[in-house]
Amino acid sequence: MHIALDAMGGDHGPEELIAGALLAAEQAHITISLVGDEVLLRSHLEKIAPAVNTASLIRIVHSSQVVEMNEHPVDAVRKKKDSSIMVAFDLVRKGEADAAVSAGNSGATMAAAVRVLGRLTGVARPGIASFFPTLKKPVVLMDVGANVDCKPLHLYQFAVMASCFSRIFDIEKPRIGLLTIGEEGGKGNILVKETYALLKKSSLNLIGNVEGRDVFQGNVDVIVCDGFVGNICLKVSEGLAEAAMQMLRNEILKSLPAKIGYLLARPAFKAFKKRVDYAEYGGAPLLGINGTGIICHGKSSAHAIKNAILEATKMVKNNVNNDILTSLAEDGNDTLMES
Amino acid sequence: MHIALDAMGGDHGPEELIAGALLAAEQAHITISLVGDEVLLRSHLEKIAPAVNTASLIRIVHSSQVVEMNEHPVDAVRKKKDSSIMVAFDLVRKGEADAAVSAGNSGATMAAAVRVLGRLTGVARPGIASFFPTLKKPVVLMDVGANVDCKPLHLYQFAVMASCFSRIFDIEKPRIGLLTIGEEGGKGNILVKETYALLKKSSLNLIGNVEGRDVFQGNVDVIVCDGFVGNICLKVSEGLAEAAMQMLRNEILKSLPAKIGYLLARPAFKAFKKRVDYAEYGGAPLLGINGTGIICHGKSSAHAIKNAILEATKMVKNNVNNDILTSLAEDGNDTLMES
Repeated sequence: MHIALDAMGGDHGPEELIAGALLAAEQAHITISLVGDEVLLRSHLEKIAPAVNTASLIRIVHSSQVVEMNEHPVDAVRKKKDSSIMVAFDLVRKGEADAAVSAGNSGATMAAAVRVLGRLTGVARPGIASFFPTLKKPVVLMDVGANVDCKPLHLYQFAVMASCFSRIFDIEKPRIGLLTIGEEGGKGNILVKETYALLKKSSLNLIGNVEGRDVFQGNVDVIVCDGFVGNICLKVSEGLAEAAMQMLRNEILKSLPAKIGYLLARPAFKAFKKRVDYAEYGGAPLLGINGTGIICHGKSSAHAIKNAILEATKMVKNNVNNDILTSLAEDGNDTLMES
Repeated sequence: MHIALDAMGGDHGPEELIAGALLAAEQAHITISLVGDEVLLRSHLEKIAPAVNTASLIRIVHSSQVVEMNEHPVDAVRKKKDSSIMVAFDLVRKGEADAAVSAGNSGATMAAAVRVLGRLTGVARPGIASFFPTLKKPVVLMDVGANVDCKPLHLYQFAVMASCFSRIFDIEKPRIGLLTIGEEGGKGNILVKETYALLKKSSLNLIGNVEGRDVFQGNVDVIVCDGFVGNICLKVSEGLAEAAMQMLRNEILKSLPAKIGYLLARPAFKAFKKRVDYAEYGGAPLLGINGTGIICHGKSSAHAIKNAILEATKMVKNNVNNDILTSLAEDGNDTLMES
């Protein structure tokens, strides 16, 4: 197994990414290509792991350009052909790497994947899936931002792809929920109503509609929605969690007993934080591309990068893409694509 | 001032509602009509306030029917003409009450308001606004569920109506944010892009796009989105807050020091909870109807009901509907409606 890591992306710089790569390489005995400025990466690598003989596990692949976080995704990948993210996916295209992982510009990562690897046969719109913590197991929600204006066919395909992905966690028949604003089958906007009918006819394990408040209950394995709604869900959740922690902190800092109390309860807070931390769950898989790719949060720690790399190896081992092709064929996807 | 309260709606039964009415009547010296089963309400009222002479402030208006929480809103208000919610809005229509408040079936409350009072002239789609807590002042988000498939005109009108509403909190020129998934003006789905252009041309104080994570920052006074997205926002926030509290509680219960710590920090938790509690902010105003109506959460406490009633009186005193009519006329709403 060989994973290409965009070693120039992410808010914490190459050191954090390299540290994550080392953790993953050691834990899973896989080869990792760090893609980026060779001189820079080599100096970081020597600083972090001077004693370890990592030559067999860690390689460096040079690229001369970097896509910045604020660049326009499609323009950036068109212009910067030798950027670390483009070179990482090119390793996958050439068969030298099995998957690519990046914590850089998410839009550019998606654009690079589609540009370099192309779509999986029969997939109209590749998308991005993401984990949400719940009271039980994490749930996979798709799409979280790649496709803002969708048709029922797209949502049906998101359901197929996210189901195949969630099977890598040993879920045999993933339970699918359609995100909407009422519990009954007839409720929602036009897109959701038409999608409901399509999912109902398919071979997928549709549980029914789920509402916003059900997202964190863990009663389904996969939640399907368009990328506009999914991105709002993701950002509202992140924003609320951050704002709530800040409000709570402000209240605690107002009194000494509260401060002492907080210190005593700290391990519980830490365990809670771990439970809701995206880093524990790996990255957001790109689904529907002709290859394997994972987008990590810009803020990813070495631990998060490690988990994303391990997730990529799991996707490759489980042959998620093959699973997607088979599932689509089962439901007569060709006919759906034509209509 | 005279407010009609649907005394049969809500999860906690008439007692809680009557208690809320008493609090509001005493605080603001207003008359409140409790609408519902006369015998039942009188017995509750005598139990709760036997000594107080409330005759001048609290009236009972009999209605023989109740719309249940799980009933289909439109069907229910069509069939149950003598339901407490219909009778409450009928008091407003006849000019006997200035506003109606209900903690019952939200959809039925909206349907009853539109059916009995009709729309404000020039408003294409009445909607529901709701408060979200933020790090600064609460923000008003509209629409939170009345209109699932919207056109740019509808979103523009939501912006006008929510702005007029937010002025009752002494905000002179409410800052408006358009909810989308990218910060730049060009980002979002087709609806948002077209709405952005319309808002930009209007006399409204458009700050620009806001993302999901900005909802809780408090940098705008009003956030505009369609009712599908708004309802998902609302329910995801409620669901996350509940799930997070439950997860944190589970972690705290695992150890004795954490439990003691929690007890010490409890006042801080309570202050935090108060800050994010919907009850503190009153109910969700129905905007765009030819009259004044407020929907309360089913779980509303007496305190929440009191705040919703006070909010209704504030809306009436500030003549929000007149403000809406003037604002719409300013922007040439008639031309927009025709196009």
